[in-house]
Amino acid sequence: MSSPVRVLVWGENRHEQLEPSVAARYPDGMHGAIARGVEEHLGEGASVRTTTLDEPEHGLSEEVLRETDVLVWWGHAAHGEVSDEVAERVQRHVLAGMGFVVLHSGHWSKPFVRLMGTSCTLRWRSEHDRELVWTVDPTHPIAQGVPHPLVIDEDEMYGEFFDVPAPDELVFISSFSGGEVFRSGCTWRRGFGKIFYFRPGDQDYPTYHHDGVRRVIANGVAWARTLRPERTDPVLLRYDTGDFFRGHGYEGPLDPAVTA
Amino acid sequence: MSSPVRVLVWGENRHEQLEPSVAARYPDGMHGAIARGVEEHLGEGASVRTTTLDEPEHGLSEEVLRETDVLVWWGHAAHGEVSDEVAERVQRHVLAGMGFVVLHSGHWSKPFVRLMGTSCTLRWRSEHDRELVWTVDPTHPIAQGVPHPLVIDEDEMYGEFFDVPAPDELVFISSFSGGEVFRSGCTWRRGFGKIFYFRPGDQDYPTYHHDGVRRVIANGVAWARTLRPERTDPVLLRYDTGDFFRGHGYEGPLDPAVTA
Amino acid sequence: MSSPVRVLVWGENRHEQLEPSVAARYPDGMHGAIARGVEEHLGEGASVRTTTLDEPEHGLSEEVLRETDVLVWWGHAAHGEVSDEVAERVQRHVLAGMGFVVLHSGHWSKPFVRLMGTSCTLRWRSEHDRELVWTVDPTHPIAQGVPHPLVIDEDEMYGEFFDVPAPDELVFISSFSGGEVFRSGCTWRRGFGKIFYFRPGDQDYPTYHHDGVRRVIANGVAWARTLRPERTDPVLLRYDTGDFFRGHGYEGPLDPAVTA
Amino acid sequence: MSSPVRVLVWGENRHEQLEPSVAARYPDGMHGAIARGVEEHLGEGASVRTTTLDEPEHGLSEEVLRETDVLVWWGHAAHGEVSDEVAERVQRHVLAGMGFVVLHSGHWSKPFVRLMGTSCTLRWRSEHDRELVWTVDPTHPIAQGVPHPLVIDEDEMYGEFFDVPAPDELVFISSFSGGEVFRSGCTWRRGFGKIFYFRPGDQDYPTYHHDGVRRVIANGVAWARTLRPERTDPVLLRYDTGDFFRGHGYEGPLDPAVTA
Repeated sequence: MSSPVRVLVWGENRHEQLEPSVAARYPDGMHGAIARGVEEHLGEGASVRTTTLDEPEHGLSEEVLRETDVLVWWGHAAHGEVSDEVAERVQRHVLAGMGFVVLHSGHWSKPFVRLMGTSCTLRWRSEHDRELVWTVDPTHPIAQGVPHPLVIDEDEMYGEFFDVPAPDELVFISSFSGGEVFRSGCTWRRGFGKIFYFRPGDQDYPTYHHDGVRRVIANGVAWARTLRPERTDPVLLRYDTGDFFRGHGYEGPLDPAVTA
Repeated sequence: MSSPVRVLVWGENRHEQLEPSVAARYPDGMHGAIARGVEEHLGEGASVRTTTLDEPEHGLSEEVLRETDVLVWWGHAAHGEVSDEVAERVQRHVLAGMGFVVLHSGHWSKPFVRLMGTSCTLRWRSEHDRELVWTVDPTHPIAQGVPHPLVIDEDEMYGEFFDVPAPDELVFISSFSGGEVFRSGCTWRRGFGKIFYFRPGDQDYPTYHHDGVRRVIANGVAWARTLRPERTDPVLLRYDTGDFFRGHGYEGPLDPAVTA
Repeated sequence: MSSPVRVLVWGENRHEQLEPSVAARYPDGMHGAIARGVEEHLGEGASVRTTTLDEPEHGLSEEVLRETDVLVWWGHAAHGEVSDEVAERVQRHVLAGMGFVVLHSGHWSKPFVRLMGTSCTLRWRSEHDRELVWTVDPTHPIAQGVPHPLVIDEDEMYGEFFDVPAPDELVFISSFSGGEVFRSGCTWRRGFGKIFYFRPGDQDYPTYHHDGVRRVIANGVAWARTLRPERTDPVLLRYDTGDFFRGHGYEGPLDPAVTA
Repeated sequence: MSSPVRVLVWGENRHEQLEPSVAARYPDGMHGAIARGVEEHLGEGASVRTTTLDEPEHGLSEEVLRETDVLVWWGHAAHGEVSDEVAERVQRHVLAGMGFVVLHSGHWSKPFVRLMGTSCTLRWRSEHDRELVWTVDPTHPIAQGVPHPLVIDEDEMYGEFFDVPAPDELVFISSFSGGEVFRSGCTWRRGFGKIFYFRPGDQDYPTYHHDGVRRVIANGVAWARTLRPERTDPVLLRYDTGDFFRGHGYEGPLDPAVTA
């Protein structure tokens, strides 16, 4: 697969507008810092754009998503402002094959919660804990080139119980100086799409300037890109006996004579 | 845990009213046949009720769900008539610890689709295929006392690809005389609740009178009952450093000074 | 299943003989303390015996294993003294349905290594770290009644990467005051048997007098007991077309005409 | 990773010598046919060699394995003739990062059985069943370009229960015209190595001339190659508090004062 992966980094872009300290920390927006990290590590292997909540349709129109191989999501303060229609659209594109990399407080974003089916709640504290990110799946593509452990001098704490489905692959576990642990790098396959959740990163810390964190996000993007040749919705089809390849569309659950 | 498990079998009860052949096959309703099977196999270990779509709130009020340990679901022709509010309520109770046993065409029911996060589509054919249900997890509680294979002389066919999350435990795989296969017995843990999906069963076949099928459903009910002492919602809480047991409620994502 | 679970706690019993401090800490042997914990929590639901390395056949004859529902294993300094024959016998009984609860340094015991197929290596340090054991699978039977987190004031540290197969169920993750993490409560199903590995516990700390640790071990014992009616070896059998229930024994890979 | 993957196809090469019908079906040996299939599909991306049981050290010396990225294994009639030393060596290289693709009757080979830890038994019949191989993990690299289903006109039957650990990823499930099912494409990660088992293929059928089967094997080879930069054994190391990167070698389980 030689064409560059088309990456869209979605940023809520609220803290940056409301809090001068965040704007100073992330002068190009958090989405800007995340995008730079992907570009640095994937180079010509990626074509990276950004968009934000305030754009029409939050920058996530049908056309835009169709041209996106992997969507990276950062949101926090304004999850509720994402329209249900756009959240459903993102979910649908993931099920049809779009990669989805969800960062940190994106755990409570509408598209992620819809895809998980759970509450996605957790325990937390923002008190400058040191985070250590340990690799527990050393052969996984996302773990390549990542120090063991990855040391983040200070970050927000997230702790268990993290109410998500047991991940298909548990790649990283974090500890915090306060003693909590967190399944901080998880993958799930949903429909024809691949999802990677990565915990580190908060508006109050310079986490997205950390080279190791950027490496993981870039690895996650490369991994989440589908290998399937085209984006297709999973469908329900009827197959005649002995014909395994030509399905027929659904015509309803009841005998036509009954519903007539 | 010595008290009987409180089981509620939910039936859509549409085919029985619309199609005389179904009414003849299931004179007490499909939910009635399912409920009898659970009673037969769990005896005094279960207290079984039934309810249907046409009841107020589809028979699934907050009070009713609170008193239900395990909800068994059969629906097909009228998934769309289940209100979103009730579907969300069922999901919430599952996440808080209610067991959920979903049968056959319930794969496309609103609560199941919400809990899976996927399209839950599959391939199908109703042409009297013989189904063989093979156990691939022989130590699982749900597989105990079940013939290997379980032979169902005729049933509707469901085939892969079944678009659900990879199950936490794959207990049964079915083959059909037409050659298709299906992951027909799957478990998932979501929140504090346990979910079991079991494929066999259709309005057009006497599947729910089959003793082996009834055994599996009863085993699934026993397994899905939570062991936790009380039903609680997963929550997001803040914890002070060094205090692991007393969480604080969420007060919003932004500094009060900012939002004031 | 009303009869008491027949538990055999196997202790290497070397540190207790060689190191007075260990003998003082565990006057009935480490196996004795472990056995008391199981008895305390399972009461009349368990019948608990102990045996040690120095017994003939290490106390693990064919007859003894046949009468054992769940074998609990603690070893450390003398893994190499366990005979290959006994290690293979334990493995065979697990595959045939015996439960196997492996504690702490038993990660490097011969039967566990054989059942895992990996090196079972890890990182470690014995410097009085505080251990916190966090539940990540709150509906699991083994997690019931266990504080979240379970606090162990001081214990040996084990850290990742722990070279074992990805567990079927990850129940607990530990953190240590030094910052390391460990998948400290793991289950695997092998053959017709169930295996639970639990990390805490060392000869140099009073871990097996800790009530929460004892609760987990007792829960693990109850969980590991097979539900199958009898112990049987998995076998390779030939089945005629259309006969799913009567297998024929293996008669070798080559045509008799060839080997004659 | 631009260098060609170094593939070694190991063939038992017994049936070919003993049975004229097999020699006629596979004039270059079964290993030869398998090797051709990998070459056809990976092209310049692979450098493929073959070796057989009758070579010194079965063609699997330390030097040869060190230069092998992925070992493909076909054996059947002479599993017992593989020396324990070579079987242990293969296992060790897999744990250190060598890919391992095991075909069909290789389920009972010594290296595979050692890596699984189970009996690896199954049910079988060689009566020209049609096999259908269904994809249940459509985003998996090994499933790309594979028809759904893959149709094999006749082959030996393998049926459940297949006594292996629950796979990390279940990619394919087969059905047979006799009605049996089998988890026919499974992956496991062990140590730093990746293992893929693929069921189809028997000396009595032309399975390894089937283009779809060859595609799957080639995909499996590409997937099984490690992404880690060098082959290293998992090791047990002691780490000082606060030093996460410099481990110390193991010096034995007992205090030197005790063992002196």
